[in-house]
Amino acid sequence: MPLANRQFRLAARPVGLPATADWSFTSADVPEPAEGQVLVKVLQISLDPAMRGWMNEGRSYIPPVGIGEVMRAGGVGKVVASGNPKHPVGDHVSGSFGVQEYCLIDGKDLARTGVSKIDLHLGSLPQWLNVLGMPGMTGYFGLLEVGQPKAGETVVVSGAAGAVGQTVGQVARIRGCRAVGIAGGKAKCDFVVNELLFDACIDYKSGNLKDALKEHCPKGVDVYFDNVGGEILDTVLTRINRHARIVVCGAISQYNNTTPVKGPANYLSLLVNRARMEGMVVFDYAERYAQAVNEIAQWMREGKFVSREDVVEGIENFPATLNKLFSGENFGKLVLKLANE
Amino acid sequence: MPLANRQFRLAARPVGLPATADWSFTSADVPEPAEGQVLVKVLQISLDPAMRGWMNEGRSYIPPVGIGEVMRAGGVGKVVASGNPKHPVGDHVSGSFGVQEYCLIDGKDLARTGVSKIDLHLGSLPQWLNVLGMPGMTGYFGLLEVGQPKAGETVVVSGAAGAVGQTVGQVARIRGCRAVGIAGGKAKCDFVVNELLFDACIDYKSGNLKDALKEHCPKGVDVYFDNVGGEILDTVLTRINRHARIVVCGAISQYNNTTPVKGPANYLSLLVNRARMEGMVVFDYAERYAQAVNEIAQWMREGKFVSREDVVEGIENFPATLNKLFSGENFGKLVLKLANE
Repeated sequence: MPLANRQFRLAARPVGLPATADWSFTSADVPEPAEGQVLVKVLQISLDPAMRGWMNEGRSYIPPVGIGEVMRAGGVGKVVASGNPKHPVGDHVSGSFGVQEYCLIDGKDLARTGVSKIDLHLGSLPQWLNVLGMPGMTGYFGLLEVGQPKAGETVVVSGAAGAVGQTVGQVARIRGCRAVGIAGGKAKCDFVVNELLFDACIDYKSGNLKDALKEHCPKGVDVYFDNVGGEILDTVLTRINRHARIVVCGAISQYNNTTPVKGPANYLSLLVNRARMEGMVVFDYAERYAQAVNEIAQWMREGKFVSREDVVEGIENFPATLNKLFSGENFGKLVLKLANE
Repeated sequence: MPLANRQFRLAARPVGLPATADWSFTSADVPEPAEGQVLVKVLQISLDPAMRGWMNEGRSYIPPVGIGEVMRAGGVGKVVASGNPKHPVGDHVSGSFGVQEYCLIDGKDLARTGVSKIDLHLGSLPQWLNVLGMPGMTGYFGLLEVGQPKAGETVVVSGAAGAVGQTVGQVARIRGCRAVGIAGGKAKCDFVVNELLFDACIDYKSGNLKDALKEHCPKGVDVYFDNVGGEILDTVLTRINRHARIVVCGAISQYNNTTPVKGPANYLSLLVNRARMEGMVVFDYAERYAQAVNEIAQWMREGKFVSREDVVEGIENFPATLNKLFSGENFGKLVLKLANE
């Protein structure tokens, strides 16, 4: 009796926040792998702000998800049937498996999906979607390669309790910088200071961000790692130092806009301060992921580095869970668990 | 009988375009230089978009001009009385002399005003305010140091017929890049192509800028040198290549805004394209001006490099002439001639 493979497919391009009608929840047979192919049982998937961008039409760093296609998502899983000796049954793997319970990967597709074996001695399944996965790699390489922080400098990161933010601030701290987070609400800020050990965390929902930046960044801002865009980016621009670096990683405040994106009105602060705003895409650093994973795993073993995930269960909860990202309801890296092993 | 020194002083901080009432036109006695001092007869002054910024209150790369102070301006002149053996009578000099007919420079002020001797064998007085002066230095160092163009790349510059733009495009051409200008009106575009020898020039006032960029930058935009901001910056952002560099030099379209500056709504193109937007201030390169001046003067002697100025006469015309910059009426570097030698 063939198993069912439940899948979320993109039914329509959303206007603003994705709605139920933008998805179709379908079921297909679970295929058998032919020679060279691998069948992965998807155990957990990563919910990322970037997914919102993949749902839009238009030129970007990867093609949009087509209408009727299974929604793209990173995930971790286990090989349950294999026609490919490189990936035997029982291996744990990560890759772009999509929002579905089983993913058949063709031999020639392995590069595209970026399937790679993961070692559960280095971290747990959700950690492989968080600090050892794309968000961790994004924070690590975005901060170090684009932000280029020097010891003693002040690094500010928005979305500090989120997947990318927690990596950015902890790497900054370990590299000898003053790490200052921006997050929404007291609980997240307490977590950022007490568990992630940032030097400070500003609750943008309470009080005046500009005043708080003055207080917590008394020497100004040397690196700003921006995950949110909008008003927060504009306010930080007023506090940057000469030769500051702004890493443009995302703009979650703008992704569901039905009006045009709000550009940073204070961008001329770049001129006055001879500062730079630079974009990054994590895939460019793929050849160096293994090195970063090993370093972060080592920090975790030494107790210097903490990883926090917000795990929701059940594939049927995918649409509502994704939208938690945009309301800022998630606390830590948002993961959807589809199955036990 | 002492000569009169006519001066324009800032009377009020303008709201929007500077108005007549924002200036006071006053007269003072011409002072005698004491020991160490130099008296310069100001022959020509430079009218620059940056002057609008100096009239505003607030933190910037140099302090604002105070109310009641002589308006700051770069100029060229001649030493007519001297108590300083470094600057004997008859020397031609450039410096920040202000909008006045005579400027007394104190020994200890020489660094502040950046007074330096100029050699009229290298270029004429207005050329020393243009391609051999601040605008030329801005275009030269901004393009080469911040834009980092490589031969074969496409360099786009707005305000192409203006002071900075003419240097940027010609240096780009000489360095083996495709040089594409953006300017207002057919006459300026013809000048940019036929005399400055850019590969193309787009008239932003006629037709669709995006389509014209597609046509004239078939390989996309690698370096954009931005003098204007606003809609033009936003449109160019949609055409940049991976790893493009945007040099933020100015935003003349926004300087007289009475509403907030329009930030670049398409700034997330920086993310998708791993591109950079970086500000520059010419003063940072002061130690290397002489090298750049010699190189540009050499290109002029070889007939590879053209300089164009728009010279208006009479100090009394200062307020109206300054405003020509913001309406785009000037054709070439705008210079106000105060006196013959």
